[in-house]
Amino acid sequence: MNSKKVEEFKEYLTKIENLNNTIALVDWDMRICMPKGSIDSRGNMLAYLSGEDYKMRTSERMRSFIESLKNEKDLDEVTSSSIENCEKEYNRTKKIPANRYTEYVKLASKSSSAWEEAKEKSDFSIFQPYLEKMVEFQKEFINYWGYEDNRYDTLLDFYEPGLKVKDLDITFNKLKKAIISILDKIRNSGVSPRYDFLQRYFSKEEQEEFDMMLLREMEFNFNIGRMDESIHPFTTSFGNKDVRITTNYHKNEFVSAMFSCLHEGGHALYEQDIPDELSGTLLNTGASMAVHESQSRFYENIIGRSKSFWKYFFPKLKAKFKQFEDVSFDEFYSAVNRVEPSLIRTESDELTYSLHIIIRYEIEKKLINGEIEVKDLPRIWNQKYKEYLGVEPRNDAEGVLQDMHWSDGSFGYFPSYALGNLYGAQFFDKMVKDIPDLYGRIERGDIGIIHSWLKDNVHKYGAVYKPNELIKKVTGENLNAEYFINYLYRKYSDIYKFEI
Amino acid sequence: MNSKKVEEFKEYLTKIENLNNTIALVDWDMRICMPKGSIDSRGNMLAYLSGEDYKMRTSERMRSFIESLKNEKDLDEVTSSSIENCEKEYNRTKKIPANRYTEYVKLASKSSSAWEEAKEKSDFSIFQPYLEKMVEFQKEFINYWGYEDNRYDTLLDFYEPGLKVKDLDITFNKLKKAIISILDKIRNSGVSPRYDFLQRYFSKEEQEEFDMMLLREMEFNFNIGRMDESIHPFTTSFGNKDVRITTNYHKNEFVSAMFSCLHEGGHALYEQDIPDELSGTLLNTGASMAVHESQSRFYENIIGRSKSFWKYFFPKLKAKFKQFEDVSFDEFYSAVNRVEPSLIRTESDELTYSLHIIIRYEIEKKLINGEIEVKDLPRIWNQKYKEYLGVEPRNDAEGVLQDMHWSDGSFGYFPSYALGNLYGAQFFDKMVKDIPDLYGRIERGDIGIIHSWLKDNVHKYGAVYKPNELIKKVTGENLNAEYFINYLYRKYSDIYKFEI
Repeated sequence: MNSKKVEEFKEYLTKIENLNNTIALVDWDMRICMPKGSIDSRGNMLAYLSGEDYKMRTSERMRSFIESLKNEKDLDEVTSSSIENCEKEYNRTKKIPANRYTEYVKLASKSSSAWEEAKEKSDFSIFQPYLEKMVEFQKEFINYWGYEDNRYDTLLDFYEPGLKVKDLDITFNKLKKAIISILDKIRNSGVSPRYDFLQRYFSKEEQEEFDMMLLREMEFNFNIGRMDESIHPFTTSFGNKDVRITTNYHKNEFVSAMFSCLHEGGHALYEQDIPDELSGTLLNTGASMAVHESQSRFYENIIGRSKSFWKYFFPKLKAKFKQFEDVSFDEFYSAVNRVEPSLIRTESDELTYSLHIIIRYEIEKKLINGEIEVKDLPRIWNQKYKEYLGVEPRNDAEGVLQDMHWSDGSFGYFPSYALGNLYGAQFFDKMVKDIPDLYGRIERGDIGIIHSWLKDNVHKYGAVYKPNELIKKVTGENLNAEYFINYLYRKYSDIYKFEI
Repeated sequence: MNSKKVEEFKEYLTKIENLNNTIALVDWDMRICMPKGSIDSRGNMLAYLSGEDYKMRTSERMRSFIESLKNEKDLDEVTSSSIENCEKEYNRTKKIPANRYTEYVKLASKSSSAWEEAKEKSDFSIFQPYLEKMVEFQKEFINYWGYEDNRYDTLLDFYEPGLKVKDLDITFNKLKKAIISILDKIRNSGVSPRYDFLQRYFSKEEQEEFDMMLLREMEFNFNIGRMDESIHPFTTSFGNKDVRITTNYHKNEFVSAMFSCLHEGGHALYEQDIPDELSGTLLNTGASMAVHESQSRFYENIIGRSKSFWKYFFPKLKAKFKQFEDVSFDEFYSAVNRVEPSLIRTESDELTYSLHIIIRYEIEKKLINGEIEVKDLPRIWNQKYKEYLGVEPRNDAEGVLQDMHWSDGSFGYFPSYALGNLYGAQFFDKMVKDIPDLYGRIERGDIGIIHSWLKDNVHKYGAVYKPNELIKKVTGENLNAEYFINYLYRKYSDIYKFEI
């Protein structure tokens, strides 16, 4: 093994990491701190930085590192994976002309800002011209990258390497069928949990105190992290020593900010746990977007909506909030697990959540394949919501403008959320087998045990393994939707009293 | 003129500006938002970015631009000044080895953080080892840069091009003599203004409301700026479209945060007013540190402590704060102009302020010339305060640790504050001549007239002219300390009832 060359390669990747962390910080500031009138100037700054990043990832030097190292013998597993990733990305990036990429990044910054304004004013027409250009860029880029069966495969592969539309259609149809079957049993159950108490008034300050306590209990490390407010909650990081989350308080929706905190907290633990040794490899992040979502949705739902979790936290909740004075444990547990088809993805229940994703997936697929047009999105969006979920948005803000993903070009990302549910349930099954009396330990307040297991079994690998390798390494088998489907049946048959 | 080459040069400088703006943002975040545990990681990020900046400023490309453009004919004034500046800086920077510069930037980041901790714990020994290394770096760098009469000249020149110790000694001695003479008359005047009401309790929130109103009245543009809190108030900018100031509220010191806001607001107006046309020249900033200080100290003192200003704002102050119920206009005006030698530079009165600067100047000069050692600073500091101002710090926090400047290596900066007073008074004399009934207009609330004059006469030039060129262009003569000295005599003879 040519150790000197490997060392140089790692130094080069460290520079790219520093540049990426800088870009993430400049972006965070744009969303959280930046004065409005600075948007064009910030766009130029980001365009410059992304241009430099692009140059480094596609440089002659990068090509030469890849060429000389990829056939080296005796490379360790990490270096080998790092080189493989760089080569894949080099080939992908190199195919896009630098000036087109820079144009795209500039547009993305303006588009994000237009989306924010459009959402605030609930007016899709403000966002439409930007979105049209963003979609055209995706199509143009896919032509550069190439594709086999379906143009959308190319975008999917960005977030979940190897996943194809033809397989995802099967998985999502299976999931859709199961959800519809459960939804049907719920509708016929006659059970209708009360939830009025969740919509009582909770000041921002008292919500924040409780949510911060939960973040501390789940072991979010505030010494290397912070929490802020933003319209749409998100997690970002500038390396494993500065991981930032946001939430959004609603004064008459107690659980909204709380579950956002658990969700973003799940992402954040993953990033904070990445070992220092993975710097200089570009593998110092999550294995894929879906595996990242498995961590966030795990804390939000599988843990955060479980009986054991609330056996420990419910007494604390009662002690803090007089708003829950007249509420029993069972009432609270049923309320946070209440199923009701609704309009907003991030506030939807655990069961119907995946239907929100499937709608977005279907729209993206058609948009990218040129089967529908941007100007028709509000109409199509509303139609699908009516058809699948039985609800209809009254305006664009609670409809097609609710998510920021399309504004910054994250097409192909949405399926990761639903896949995250599947990974999470499969990890949980293994965790229950590994840790004796897991439920009992959680009930007694040992929330940290969950974090320890995830750190040792998932987080510590960063992106060294591909998602399909990781799930096999951790659980001994390939991704299997049955774990999540069975989990859903168990939970809802208990709450809604029906036979499986 | 080779327009194509000039265009390329401007593109190159635009990249440097984008990089500088990024570094300023990463630094702002470090001081205002960053979680503590991220300090080492942030140091690496800044070291990387500064290394890139260093590379661009000292590149073969930069040398080639300078060589090919500096003897071009028909260059416009701005391009010509831009090239001259770049050449000066190229020569200065090129003399420092890149690895030493990178080491220095890394150290500066840790040193700033050590200073913060040392100040918080009031323990100089925490900061001492870092400061020693910072001073050694200055000495090493001066050896690279070279010097003629005095090593300290080289540092002075960074902030005020062309200024020499031998001249500054004369100016500062003249100023010292005048201040001591006035101070003497004040001591013998028998006048002792009451100021108890300034030390009543003012909540942070009500201070903030009033200070924000003042910032709006002076025309700080919040659409391209923001205000935050930090231990030591400062101004930073990421181009003319994102200018950020900070202040520090003291609940029993009403004027502290308020005058900080006027001070930083003065800096900020300068940066917000830089014309867009100056981007791509590296001249899109103030003419020098002293000229920058002339703007901040102008709003803080010459305007913010004037009778006309308070004739307009005093009724608003009374209406807002019941704490001033029993206070007359004259009492308030005398209180904010009260002279009393004190410990903290940023809270010192307008008259004795320059003595604080002269102490720092004398210490820096000796430190850089190896006549005193870092370990002796607390002792020397305390001695000088006793000797010049008749006051003695009880601990390091209110003594040698009070300013951040040495922690990030800003040696040679302090004199700019006192020079700023001189520039400011000379500008003001011209402003009074130019604007009919200026005092009356301020009294009637036309605060914007001040901003307009400064914008048209000072701000719009950015750094196109050197300080000595600028003062001549604006006022028709060279820098002359008499304007400030006369201003001080006029103000204090009125308040303290003595003959000039």
